[in-house]
Amino acid sequence: MTPNLPSSRDKLLFTPGPLTTSLSVKQAMLHDAGSWHFEFNALVARLRERLLGIAGVSGAAGWEVILLQGSGTYGVEAVFQTCVPPKGKVAVLTNGAYGNRIVQMLSLARIDHVVLRTPENLPTDPNTLHELIASEKAISHVAVVHCETTTGIINPIAELGAIARAHGKTYVVDAMSSFGGIPIDFAGCGIDYLISSANKCLEGVPGFCFVICRRESLMACEGYARSLSLDLLGQLKGFQTNGQFRYTPPTHSLLAFNQALNELEIEGGVAARAERYRRNHQALLEGMAKVGLRPYLDPAVQSHFITAFEYPKRASFSFDRLYRQLSDRGFIIYPGKLTQVDTFRIGTIGRIFPEDLKQLTTAIAELLGSLD
Amino acid sequence: MTPNLPSSRDKLLFTPGPLTTSLSVKQAMLHDAGSWHFEFNALVARLRERLLGIAGVSGAAGWEVILLQGSGTYGVEAVFQTCVPPKGKVAVLTNGAYGNRIVQMLSLARIDHVVLRTPENLPTDPNTLHELIASEKAISHVAVVHCETTTGIINPIAELGAIARAHGKTYVVDAMSSFGGIPIDFAGCGIDYLISSANKCLEGVPGFCFVICRRESLMACEGYARSLSLDLLGQLKGFQTNGQFRYTPPTHSLLAFNQALNELEIEGGVAARAERYRRNHQALLEGMAKVGLRPYLDPAVQSHFITAFEYPKRASFSFDRLYRQLSDRGFIIYPGKLTQVDTFRIGTIGRIFPEDLKQLTTAIAELLGSLD
Repeated sequence: MTPNLPSSRDKLLFTPGPLTTSLSVKQAMLHDAGSWHFEFNALVARLRERLLGIAGVSGAAGWEVILLQGSGTYGVEAVFQTCVPPKGKVAVLTNGAYGNRIVQMLSLARIDHVVLRTPENLPTDPNTLHELIASEKAISHVAVVHCETTTGIINPIAELGAIARAHGKTYVVDAMSSFGGIPIDFAGCGIDYLISSANKCLEGVPGFCFVICRRESLMACEGYARSLSLDLLGQLKGFQTNGQFRYTPPTHSLLAFNQALNELEIEGGVAARAERYRRNHQALLEGMAKVGLRPYLDPAVQSHFITAFEYPKRASFSFDRLYRQLSDRGFIIYPGKLTQVDTFRIGTIGRIFPEDLKQLTTAIAELLGSLD
Repeated sequence: MTPNLPSSRDKLLFTPGPLTTSLSVKQAMLHDAGSWHFEFNALVARLRERLLGIAGVSGAAGWEVILLQGSGTYGVEAVFQTCVPPKGKVAVLTNGAYGNRIVQMLSLARIDHVVLRTPENLPTDPNTLHELIASEKAISHVAVVHCETTTGIINPIAELGAIARAHGKTYVVDAMSSFGGIPIDFAGCGIDYLISSANKCLEGVPGFCFVICRRESLMACEGYARSLSLDLLGQLKGFQTNGQFRYTPPTHSLLAFNQALNELEIEGGVAARAERYRRNHQALLEGMAKVGLRPYLDPAVQSHFITAFEYPKRASFSFDRLYRQLSDRGFIIYPGKLTQVDTFRIGTIGRIFPEDLKQLTTAIAELLGSLD
């Protein structure tokens, strides 16, 4: 019998985050930092500055970034809990589980909203937003998910933003699994609030999310907050007052994030990272095509972050078995989340490379081949 | 000039958390885990089981533990956002900043409440709670902070709980900086909800908090939640349904927490850890007494977690200077939070030992001595 020793390497995560990070990012967590200490505050200030730089915006041009403890969902909810006035109404554009989650958080917070649903395999059509805004005068905010992780579809945030902005609506973009992995033109898209998280394309570890926003938009929200922990304006004031998080931050995640941003820089920034993810995605498609597996989405609307594949059409296929067999070989893939079609998903972000996708798809080919 | 190399050891944190953790706890974070993966789910299930064990309660006896992403404050707020019915009213017993924070979160959530204030140097008197409950029939919940970190004072949670329970009120205890560092008799105190966090006396790293509660109490809260992220019942259902966090958990913090619980066990459990903290506190008092510095609180109500000291009464004293000088010697202490008196605080929890307190107080003696 093999003694119960840990493996010298982790299984590779082909998931949309938490994802595989570099060893050096994880090693940055081998330290304890005081969350009130001036050295740590200086680090937090630098991280905020660097995030604005990655976004291609600046404090001088009126932008702020607020780090918030918790998962990405906390950041999305914090925007609505803090920024929608009592009589505000949010138009939610959804074509997947993450858009639906926004609807769910608005319902629980008793925030008025209207939902514009698009089938899961199609991007939101800007014309439908135009019509919705024309018919519902009470709409104050428009919310959309950039890359809907349910399918990996990319929604047209520039076109949607142009309409929101033309009608004077506040524009909220959930860019959880896209920010840092594809260039985003903040001003060009008319973004007021964009939310993302440490453990996605920036390749940090989970523990906090962040909101990049127009200072003017957020400062106008005094008195709206419905939650203390999720009070985005309160959190910003904390950073402005003494450079600190209001409540205990995930210090180790922040140390790791600093190293993750160093490594993004070394890689060549967002454009270079996007290029690696594109090559990962290409390697995935090529490998899967050999087994006859094609992506669920039309290539024109498919992102390079995560890809959904329909189950093979043979009775002998079991996702659970494939998942466990791949796990035994050191590969973790991701289950589907579609409501109408049985799919599984493969993420192509994190510290993984085309060679890893080749190994994964070779393993899939072997395992599915042996089914026949 | 010294080249810009990192020190081989971290500064010691004499803070109430985040605190100094063992190297082995931090090394447990050198792995990436898939948050959907069955191996990780099994770990989460074990952690929940172990937490109930540390609390001295069990699932069979009707107890649940819910892990929640974010700082301890998120957990406290989640209890109120989830569990207070629309017409509920919370009696908040406060004698410091953390009690006041509960008032603040109830105000923002528009939850009705009444505040029972006690001076910061005195524990809440159970008689005053008795009178308050008699005079305010609408009270549905009673909330108190066990160890108020503002001063380090211990509130009499057993006596207060007996009164809350006798009147059929739901009893909420914020045990952020006490749980795991002192035995707590859950049933004896009549606790319905107790909140604590990974990075306090359990000596994990920050990233999540947890709520230990009576299943019956929480299950009765269907439909009250005012927030999705902070929906404690929703979070419990997630664990019950598929063993998973609803949203991305801080995977690395959870790996570290598992190791932290191993080390609590090795140390001999809560009683042994409480004994070490008591010895830390004793060493602190002895060292500070030599410099003529006495604790702000009466010893009878002082915890062994954190101790507030009044500023020395000489004009030459500067807390900022002392703080920076101690930092240069590798010691991080904590500023005060009292509203009426100038204090600073020294924490005695975390992976620190009486010898560390001796070194710290020796340094303080030298630095304050050189002032004269």
